[in-house]
Amino acid sequence: MVATHAAGLATLRDASNARVDATLSALFDTRTATEPRLEAAMRHGLLVGGKRLRPLLVYLAGQALGARDEELDAPAAAIELIHAYSLIHDDLPAMDDDDLRRGQPTVHKAFDEATAILAGDALQALAFEVLARTAHPRLGSLVTTLATASGRDGMVAGQALDLAAVGGHPNVDALAHMHAHKTGALIVAAVRLGGLIAVDEHDPRLKALIRYARAIGLAFQIHDDVLDVTGDTDTLGKTSGADAARAKPTYPGLLGLEGAQHKAQTLIDEAIAALAPLGKNAQPLADLAHYMIERDH
Amino acid sequence: MVATHAAGLATLRDASNARVDATLSALFDTRTATEPRLEAAMRHGLLVGGKRLRPLLVYLAGQALGARDEELDAPAAAIELIHAYSLIHDDLPAMDDDDLRRGQPTVHKAFDEATAILAGDALQALAFEVLARTAHPRLGSLVTTLATASGRDGMVAGQALDLAAVGGHPNVDALAHMHAHKTGALIVAAVRLGGLIAVDEHDPRLKALIRYARAIGLAFQIHDDVLDVTGDTDTLGKTSGADAARAKPTYPGLLGLEGAQHKAQTLIDEAIAALAPLGKNAQPLADLAHYMIERDH
Repeated sequence: MVATHAAGLATLRDASNARVDATLSALFDTRTATEPRLEAAMRHGLLVGGKRLRPLLVYLAGQALGARDEELDAPAAAIELIHAYSLIHDDLPAMDDDDLRRGQPTVHKAFDEATAILAGDALQALAFEVLARTAHPRLGSLVTTLATASGRDGMVAGQALDLAAVGGHPNVDALAHMHAHKTGALIVAAVRLGGLIAVDEHDPRLKALIRYARAIGLAFQIHDDVLDVTGDTDTLGKTSGADAARAKPTYPGLLGLEGAQHKAQTLIDEAIAALAPLGKNAQPLADLAHYMIERDH
Repeated sequence: MVATHAAGLATLRDASNARVDATLSALFDTRTATEPRLEAAMRHGLLVGGKRLRPLLVYLAGQALGARDEELDAPAAAIELIHAYSLIHDDLPAMDDDDLRRGQPTVHKAFDEATAILAGDALQALAFEVLARTAHPRLGSLVTTLATASGRDGMVAGQALDLAAVGGHPNVDALAHMHAHKTGALIVAAVRLGGLIAVDEHDPRLKALIRYARAIGLAFQIHDDVLDVTGDTDTLGKTSGADAARAKPTYPGLLGLEGAQHKAQTLIDEAIAALAPLGKNAQPLADLAHYMIERDH
């Protein structure tokens, strides 16, 4: 069972990655850069970005509601551009001060701090430029979705909450609140963007997708915390045990390892239940939910 | 003559400032902030932003083509949000490392560096959120205009070019190229946004506005360099002679003071000539062009 859904999902994920990487590469190839070093830093940040989970969610959510892949390319690339910019800025010395990401030097290490700040800024602008290309009748909703999920009520707020929490002792609710913003907001935005390509704001299937995304977003984060305890550095591509070393609040720290694993499983069950109104077109999303807490990195 | 156009322009500028400040304030009042400290930093950055030149250009360009003020509020606020974010990031220690802006502590001094980075990021997202509210049939063009002017082919590229030029010896063309991106791109975007509210991409009056904006954008920058030589610190609100102290390339440095003043005057003449297709509705834009090189701060 696990093997079957994993194999089907792997095919879809490869297709999604190929599409989004092609869209992102095309943004840099066949053009003359105004500032080549700036664009090299932007590319570096995009390449070390990683799993391409958010674009996959755009494609799977859109496909579940009947959108065509060609319509989903722009929102898929746009959300990855936002994610990439946020990683560049999060890694800066004034923020998390990380030298490595997925085994590669972070942008401010490979280039310099000013270039990293500017590369992040330019990637954010590029996200909205790419999204505007969709020329979709619901472009207003698409832009609003991406902007609110990235900004002061979404991802940026989450990063600020996370920085404010260092050295503090948040409870489980405060931790969930922080994650719902820092990583959850973009994961919800991904399914919303994909869904909005096919249906309007008021379609109940869009609400179902959002419930699904909230649950997998938090489960994803809990599983990250779990992997930090159970994983090894080579497989993770980052230092295992780093959270504990930084005295960073985590789910295993608050609920125990088993408690955290149980919480993640409960959320995945909720996510899959939320997909009911979408019928069997949502099977890949259900498979992805399982994968969220089975992955080892 | 100067007194007449100055008085009429002052009235229009007061009206523009009142409208844009009301729109910007409304973004923060009557809501509960997810992260109050983050939003306080965003407000601080918006308040020390200053002259509100870009919103004024949105209003005057839009009005010249028959747009209503209510339609211009969102693009006017959006472009000021982009400008404010860019100042916050430009002032950071890794960039220009400025402690004061318009006599106030910069955001990273009043708060901290991480908060300043995040406040800038959130202001950029908010700019696109506000712009998307226009629900305008040409929203795609509006978003594209703002995004391209802010990003890797616009403002951010200009900042990168400026940082790369420190200590170098650019000629007049290289200096103009840098300014056309760093400040010129947003000034052109301002008239384009205002114009696009009233007319479509292909209207020749839009091209006239863009020629106008390119000329006043460069004249504005040359006059800034001139004021750095001729002005005093109290009137400027920043340290006079700072450019020379930093060995920063300037127009007076390359052309001499009189040469720079002559160049600025020539550009203003070009800007006013470009307005011919707009007829007498463009008089306030002509008045603004005069003001650009008459202002003492």
